[in-house]
Amino acid sequence: MSGKVVAVAGVTGAVGTEMLHVLEAREFPVKELVPLASARSIGKKIRFAGEELTVRELGEDSFEGVDVALFSAGGPRSKKFAPAAVASGAVVVDNSSAFRMDPEVPLVVPEVNAEAAKAHRGIIANPNCSTIVMVVPMWPIHKAARVTRLVCCTYQAVSGTGAKAISELCRQCDALVSDPAYAQYKEEALLAGLGLRDDSPHLARDLERSIYPHQIAFNLLPHVGDFYPEGDTTEERKLVDETHKIFDDDSIRIFGTTVRVPVFRAHSEAVHFETAEPLSPDDVRDLLAEAPGVEVVDDPGTDQYPMPIHATGRAEVLVGRIRRDPSVENGLALFLSCDQLLKGAALNAVQIAELL
Amino acid sequence: MSGKVVAVAGVTGAVGTEMLHVLEAREFPVKELVPLASARSIGKKIRFAGEELTVRELGEDSFEGVDVALFSAGGPRSKKFAPAAVASGAVVVDNSSAFRMDPEVPLVVPEVNAEAAKAHRGIIANPNCSTIVMVVPMWPIHKAARVTRLVCCTYQAVSGTGAKAISELCRQCDALVSDPAYAQYKEEALLAGLGLRDDSPHLARDLERSIYPHQIAFNLLPHVGDFYPEGDTTEERKLVDETHKIFDDDSIRIFGTTVRVPVFRAHSEAVHFETAEPLSPDDVRDLLAEAPGVEVVDDPGTDQYPMPIHATGRAEVLVGRIRRDPSVENGLALFLSCDQLLKGAALNAVQIAELL
Repeated sequence: MSGKVVAVAGVTGAVGTEMLHVLEAREFPVKELVPLASARSIGKKIRFAGEELTVRELGEDSFEGVDVALFSAGGPRSKKFAPAAVASGAVVVDNSSAFRMDPEVPLVVPEVNAEAAKAHRGIIANPNCSTIVMVVPMWPIHKAARVTRLVCCTYQAVSGTGAKAISELCRQCDALVSDPAYAQYKEEALLAGLGLRDDSPHLARDLERSIYPHQIAFNLLPHVGDFYPEGDTTEERKLVDETHKIFDDDSIRIFGTTVRVPVFRAHSEAVHFETAEPLSPDDVRDLLAEAPGVEVVDDPGTDQYPMPIHATGRAEVLVGRIRRDPSVENGLALFLSCDQLLKGAALNAVQIAELL
Repeated sequence: MSGKVVAVAGVTGAVGTEMLHVLEAREFPVKELVPLASARSIGKKIRFAGEELTVRELGEDSFEGVDVALFSAGGPRSKKFAPAAVASGAVVVDNSSAFRMDPEVPLVVPEVNAEAAKAHRGIIANPNCSTIVMVVPMWPIHKAARVTRLVCCTYQAVSGTGAKAISELCRQCDALVSDPAYAQYKEEALLAGLGLRDDSPHLARDLERSIYPHQIAFNLLPHVGDFYPEGDTTEERKLVDETHKIFDDDSIRIFGTTVRVPVFRAHSEAVHFETAEPLSPDDVRDLLAEAPGVEVVDDPGTDQYPMPIHATGRAEVLVGRIRRDPSVENGLALFLSCDQLLKGAALNAVQIAELL
């Protein structure tokens, strides 16, 4: 196979950085890598395939000779520059939400709907991370028994918000670790400082923050993305709309609650679902054992279940806690963890590029 | 009102410590406090109502003259010593799981079934923390529109496991904060160290641990309590069985996934439910605005929603993210946070004692 000229737009970000690692790790045939980012990153150095490359500014004239352009520079930049990349003859794999629901743009998870990629007109969209990590294991279940309803509660890592959010969690933890109340906690004595009093030192100082509206260290926020007037978050709607498009099936009734937790990397999700045809937990385990992109980690007796620290750096969606949900007919539940920067973003984008 | 002699068994633990604070804060008429704990805490000093008291060993002869005995010393000690307390003439409010499902023992959340306490034969059981924080807001909804099904996903704080678990989270954080990978994270450069490689520094060192089977810092475990052979945890079954008993209604179909998160204090829960009679989100807000023990915190537009840091030290269950769940008939969802050491344990126990 002859090599390709591959541009990465947003190359200095959390997902862009992972895209480089994934291109290397999967030995994608890169003839030349074009590292692109916004103006403030011009001149930064990145390493790819043993060479040091200088970041160039993302612009309309960045794509001459480019075969594949992987975009992860935010929705507005995708909207602005992806058409220029297509006009230059590149195929764009876009990680932003800019084109996902555009009926002319395929929304692709290769394990689910690789075929859909063929119909592209220059742009293929990469789904949102929480959607990708859910549909990879749910697709074989849907194919086997038709999922009729699904409720998803997420436990999402800060890296989903980007590198600055990781840094914010670190800086807040640093501040709290040196707090006198923390020393009490450590000596199992903290609780004497708590209670019903308003002035109790409960580690909720007004910490420096710029990314999240509230402290994220030792806290959680039921808030991922922005709010619609009806009270849903953009992240919650993506779970519904993107899954319908990827499965090419609007009949599955989906709802979710998305929550940010103080975990660096790897999203987790508790998925409670119903199927048209009955399946036992063992049936689900058998289906998932054969499923591409999934690893079943389900031996509670030896404390084996999916967790973010085990999913970090892994390509697979880890799935466990597979159980019957007796509260509804044909009810089942599972818990998953997946490195959302890899399979949920960079890896999925490169897999799409591999389809081309 | 004449004062009572109140014994607290397990007085040095996380819940026992809070029981003392709650007795003080609510001005419970304590004539004499009897601080009891296991042998290894004998001689420790505790403070109550401005006085220093010396911890005595919990034994069968500890309860002479005691009117009310608040137990939070674990199931085995409750089983062993609660009958002795009752024989001595005390009424026992037991925070362990020892007697909760005993048909002769009332299981009481005062906002829900205060009447049930009257039928006690010496012991009244305090429900599990995740159950209490859920039933306080769900009861007025159930009364108004009959809840037919409920799926609960939990985000549980380490203090639910006790003071040693808080300390374990602190010690693991201390170790990770001084890790070279952490410094990279803080400088937004960590991601260069990650990727698909097996040796990547992803903060999953073999940290010291004795309480949880896996690292809890910057991680989460879909594992609260112990596992049944069917794969459910004891915590998940308690949500079902205890709610049925407290509501005196086995018809509500309940299922859940319980997850431990790196939060010090206050459990959160995403509750997705269906009602027999239709309710709008505004109806639910109105019901909960009037409900005892609940505070509605539900203004997403200004980033107001329940969070552990705001629930910590508070007596109320904070409820928000109240939404229609259009994926099912009469579907609704809410998110709650509550200080499970207070309303979920110590406060509920003292409220029960106040009923006597």
